Amino acid sequence: MVYLNGNFIPKSKAYVSVMDRGFLFGDGVYEVFPVYGKKIVGEELHLKRLQEGLDAINIVNPHSNENWSLLIRELISYHQDYHNQSIYLQISRGCDDDRKHTHGDLMPTVYMQSTPFASKSKNDLLKGSAAITRDDIRWNQCNTKSTSLIANIMYAQDAKNHQAEETILCRNGVITECSSSNVFIVNDNCIYTHPEGPYILPGVTRKIVLNCARDCQILAKEKTFTKQDLMKADEVWITSSTREIMPITSVDGILINDGRIGDVWSLIYDRYQELKNTN
Amino acid sequence: MVYLNGNFIPKSKAYVSVMDRGFLFGDGVYEVFPVYGKKIVGEELHLKRLQEGLDAINIVNPHSNENWSLLIRELISYHQDYHNQSIYLQISRGCDDDRKHTHGDLMPTVYMQSTPFASKSKNDLLKGSAAITRDDIRWNQCNTKSTSLIANIMYAQDAKNHQAEETILCRNGVITECSSSNVFIVNDNCIYTHPEGPYILPGVTRKIVLNCARDCQILAKEKTFTKQDLMKADEVWITSSTREIMPITSVDGILINDGRIGDVWSLIYDRYQELKNTN
Repeated sequence: MVYLNGNFIPKSKAYVSVMDRGFLFGDGVYEVFPVYGKKIVGEELHLKRLQEGLDAINIVNPHSNENWSLLIRELISYHQDYHNQSIYLQISRGCDDDRKHTHGDLMPTVYMQSTPFASKSKNDLLKGSAAITRDDIRWNQCNTKSTSLIANIMYAQDAKNHQAEETILCRNGVITECSSSNVFIVNDNCIYTHPEGPYILPGVTRKIVLNCARDCQILAKEKTFTKQDLMKADEVWITSSTREIMPITSVDGILINDGRIGDVWSLIYDRYQELKNTN
Repeated sequence: MVYLNGNFIPKSKAYVSVMDRGFLFGDGVYEVFPVYGKKIVGEELHLKRLQEGLDAINIVNPHSNENWSLLIRELISYHQDYHNQSIYLQISRGCDDDRKHTHGDLMPTVYMQSTPFASKSKNDLLKGSAAITRDDIRWNQCNTKSTSLIANIMYAQDAKNHQAEETILCRNGVITECSSSNVFIVNDNCIYTHPEGPYILPGVTRKIVLNCARDCQILAKEKTFTKQDLMKADEVWITSSTREIMPITSVDGILINDGRIGDVWSLIYDRYQELKNTN
């Protein structure tokens, strides 16, 4: 079952008009909520970012946070057979009578679906993952989680074509983030990740990881680092709601720290698991 | 009547699955063909750019140019009551079973619609139009006519909110193009427009206008110019398939050349009208 504009219906019956500005213009925003059992991790942070995204593109939020919570929980309840699920929520500006760039006030289209997901076990993550790097050619408002994702999907597909987990992006020599995750490095037991601003999505998992570092009394800095810093780092991780915290052991075919997974990752990973399993 | 995946159907019945990657990711390209009577202006150039767009995002063109021509003509024939029409053609990557950034080979979604349009008369254009300027924060692949248009629609809406016709974009001090048109200036009887490349859409009308300049023996250079050049230009125009060649007489509330419409515009405009009415 999926949710579309007020109704829970089978996904096979969920259709939108070709006039939907999501279809014609990528004119919308989205969120992905990871759900473990019935626990939604970072719910408030996701709903806050949803509001910021809607504000950024001038769509009035069609629901209060309380209503979103109820709707998301109702969707979750339809999929109790999923051990873990990820809830995808998209709001597009809605349907106009005709296609024109400008718009009046429209009734937003709300779509939600649930997908089962199994986060990788620690043992699996310890096998390491590969990434490639590419120039970051995206727009200068990457903090808006818009559905205009053409650049991101090109990067994701590029990674897939290179049997890599992700594409790490580099803007003017500085590492920003990945196609659908944030990136961290560790050097001399200090964690670094790109500061918030127009060049990265302010990831919810990124934020939780920074809190985990504090909990573990490990120094973490929101500070830019270069591709050279990345290549000679002690550890490289990527983070996202569905990937959680994933160690990257090779970049562009070159091993990071001789392919060894670091101790800092292990500590932060364990702390994240604790948090996600706590009510 | 609109065309959707092989069928001509009423627009009110044209729906796509929520799994369409056009809806979820803005994962598609589009073209707009201006049609005067039954004449499609720049048909070959539009179909060539469509192919380049599909190549850029790795979608196999679902039709030969001959088939596109037939389909477009069939759509036109359903709207013979329109004096002029603009044909919108969108191809998205198609529907997957679930939402993930990466994709396999999918059957592309093809959507086409016709809208009546009336190009402004020369007398109307002589009244002049206003534009505003904004920093160009779009991605570095603006030559791909993708449906991931969130930045473009924000600029278009910004212009509308300022009672302006268009938003002229400026990247690092250099004028690139507008939210949905190219921009030209004239200085000392020489025409300037930004060269092709990653920062502008290679407009079909832009190309025809450059040919018109040659026909009229007016010097035209594909050469960058700054915002200062724009503000003190003798003439400023914007061009697109549906706007044709439109003189801009004020930018950010400041009159261009004291609000006078230039002679070069008039010559090029007349030549364009000749061409569009010739078979």
